[in-house]
Amino acid sequence: MIVGGGFGGLAAARALSRAPVFVTVIDRSNSHLFQPLLYQVATAGLSPADIARPIRNILRRQLNADVLLAEVTGVDLDRRRVNLAGGDSRPYDYLVLATGAVDCYFGHDDWAFAAPGLKGIPGATHIRSRILRAFEKAEAESDQGRRNRLLTFVIVGGGPTGVEMAGAIAELARLALPADFRHIDTRSARIILVEAGPRLLAAFSEPLSAAARRRLERMGVEIRCGSRVETIDGVGVFAAGEEIPAETVIWAAGVTATPVCQWLRCECGSGGRVPVLPDLSIEGRPEVFVVGDAALVKRGHDYVPGLAPAAQQEGRYAASVIAARAAGRPDPKPWVYLDKGMMATVGRKFAVAQVGPLKLTGVAAWLAWMAIHVYYLIGFRSRLLVMLEWAWAYFTFQRGARLITVPADDANS
Amino acid sequence: MIVGGGFGGLAAARALSRAPVFVTVIDRSNSHLFQPLLYQVATAGLSPADIARPIRNILRRQLNADVLLAEVTGVDLDRRRVNLAGGDSRPYDYLVLATGAVDCYFGHDDWAFAAPGLKGIPGATHIRSRILRAFEKAEAESDQGRRNRLLTFVIVGGGPTGVEMAGAIAELARLALPADFRHIDTRSARIILVEAGPRLLAAFSEPLSAAARRRLERMGVEIRCGSRVETIDGVGVFAAGEEIPAETVIWAAGVTATPVCQWLRCECGSGGRVPVLPDLSIEGRPEVFVVGDAALVKRGHDYVPGLAPAAQQEGRYAASVIAARAAGRPDPKPWVYLDKGMMATVGRKFAVAQVGPLKLTGVAAWLAWMAIHVYYLIGFRSRLLVMLEWAWAYFTFQRGARLITVPADDANS
Repeated sequence: MIVGGGFGGLAAARALSRAPVFVTVIDRSNSHLFQPLLYQVATAGLSPADIARPIRNILRRQLNADVLLAEVTGVDLDRRRVNLAGGDSRPYDYLVLATGAVDCYFGHDDWAFAAPGLKGIPGATHIRSRILRAFEKAEAESDQGRRNRLLTFVIVGGGPTGVEMAGAIAELARLALPADFRHIDTRSARIILVEAGPRLLAAFSEPLSAAARRRLERMGVEIRCGSRVETIDGVGVFAAGEEIPAETVIWAAGVTATPVCQWLRCECGSGGRVPVLPDLSIEGRPEVFVVGDAALVKRGHDYVPGLAPAAQQEGRYAASVIAARAAGRPDPKPWVYLDKGMMATVGRKFAVAQVGPLKLTGVAAWLAWMAIHVYYLIGFRSRLLVMLEWAWAYFTFQRGARLITVPADDANS
Repeated sequence: MIVGGGFGGLAAARALSRAPVFVTVIDRSNSHLFQPLLYQVATAGLSPADIARPIRNILRRQLNADVLLAEVTGVDLDRRRVNLAGGDSRPYDYLVLATGAVDCYFGHDDWAFAAPGLKGIPGATHIRSRILRAFEKAEAESDQGRRNRLLTFVIVGGGPTGVEMAGAIAELARLALPADFRHIDTRSARIILVEAGPRLLAAFSEPLSAAARRRLERMGVEIRCGSRVETIDGVGVFAAGEEIPAETVIWAAGVTATPVCQWLRCECGSGGRVPVLPDLSIEGRPEVFVVGDAALVKRGHDYVPGLAPAAQQEGRYAASVIAARAAGRPDPKPWVYLDKGMMATVGRKFAVAQVGPLKLTGVAAWLAWMAIHVYYLIGFRSRLLVMLEWAWAYFTFQRGARLITVPADDANS
């Protein structure tokens, strides 16, 4: 039984295709989502269906796999059952929890409405509607102060998501939109990236983080490092002693694991993640595994980062342990994380990448970033559509999916 | 001032590009939508952004045109102002109302929740989510009776929309989905098309309507002509004395014009449409024009049908009248509807088409249908994406946009 059809859960399900087990993947969404490109949905570059595919369609040829669309509400460890919304429950012999992460507002859950995060397709289309509607409202607004507020976009969090969002919004405002508006100059939009730590992309080396910063500044993004956000409300953001009136605030500052810790009644590790043993099972329950963003896996003095390749490797490893035990073989060797590096893209023709000692910036990193993301997309259709959308955007400077699908929160403002 | 960015409104705006006037297009959506392909969004064949493009992007090079995202609530004919939601209002010299049609439940507005219609992108993604979720629920259901109800799809209305929807759902169930499910045979799904009149596609000639009927029956669609729907509730449909338990009911039975009649305080014609003079203006107000589905235009003893080409021709004619008057020239000759014919597609490799005396069925009509729809799509991007999705669907028998984006209405059922 696998809970979650993201990178970790899907890798586990596929790795069990030849094992003498029957696999059920439970997810509350019907689709596997390619999260690394979700920010492009939020900035009108891609359609949701370009980067999502039904989990049951991906597994349709794997005849020992079954997919269930349901919301898991808890785990009964003693009776070995997973509880589902609606009162139903399902038994398991082995359980892989790959439930991923959700936005974490560090105790300020009331900020969630004013500063939506990027998790899932609904989050991305919501942000897309907010960004595009802010420009529309500014076009109709005659008061200069209110117009400035409408054209201010604050991104909270200077990690890869925040940097990629800031770059994409800057391109939207500077390149894609100017010719479409008559009363405002969308190039005058202020895009402010607020980061509490001392530098952007803290997980990258200092030269790369400085290169990303210079690039963003050249695109007109204002960067405020060392600024902790104190308040977010319907008016704007209060950070580092300054009030920034802004219609659109986007949360990219942190994620926490889904309530797996509560389900397992265990002590949470850093980021709400579940501490696991070297075989990725939990203490005292050798039949329960946690993989991906929900798991806290030690690596020396540090932890394995919450990246897609890590989740896939963990999912595959947990599957190999289950397959070995189901076949009566000894456990495989303990899992070792193979670091495939990190990358982040900043607008067109620029990215930073770090693979072990190798560091890349600029066009070369951007081409590598594109190749790798297209390669890891599942299915010929997604690859072709994403490449086409990118080629079209590259040559026309336009954005193809500029749809406002979410109704205005308040028709009067 | 043009209200509505559909086929009629957009044609009027474009036709005024060289006139000595300033054009404002008001729409409550930011996008022009290619309605004829909307049923493919509802059946997971296309993404919304494939057939929608921002109105202001379409008009970006037309420097005398301005686009406003706003909801019109009424018209003040004496003061020549359009009232907007939120209390604002805008003045006009000439007004073109191209507000289109909405679903009409013939006095049963309580059916709207149980039987959603296809108007707009939200309607299409809602229907898509309902159809896909019905299959998901059936997969998880063990009771045979409840499973049969979940796998029953009723389409109310045998016009082009109903016929195209029925064909597309039949293909989804018979070709795209079977390999993905383990516990149900999606080919056993019942698709029932209910039509109150004596035959399908009443606007087409009898041989064409019979050909479409035979084709649908061969695809396994049950057709009930002469059946008036008496009740639609959360359980199913009661039609022609029979109770049909069905999870999914889709409304394709009728449209009515948006409340333009109320705005103009005039007497409604057939279908809630506004009777117009031969120059498409309304009685006593030569500066107010109504075009498209909102207008009731006489043609001999009949009326001009509510089709996209008619709306475009009306929009262009109203624009030519306005341009002539603004330039001080005499009015152009009265408008004559140029009938470009009608077509409807029934699944893969089959369509029916009727252009004056010329009648086509089968593959030839289907190829013509594809060519014409791709031709009329706006922009290279949409054309390329739609052709690609179609080619992919044709060769793989799959549907690319199988996303459930709308949450379950009730998690317990």
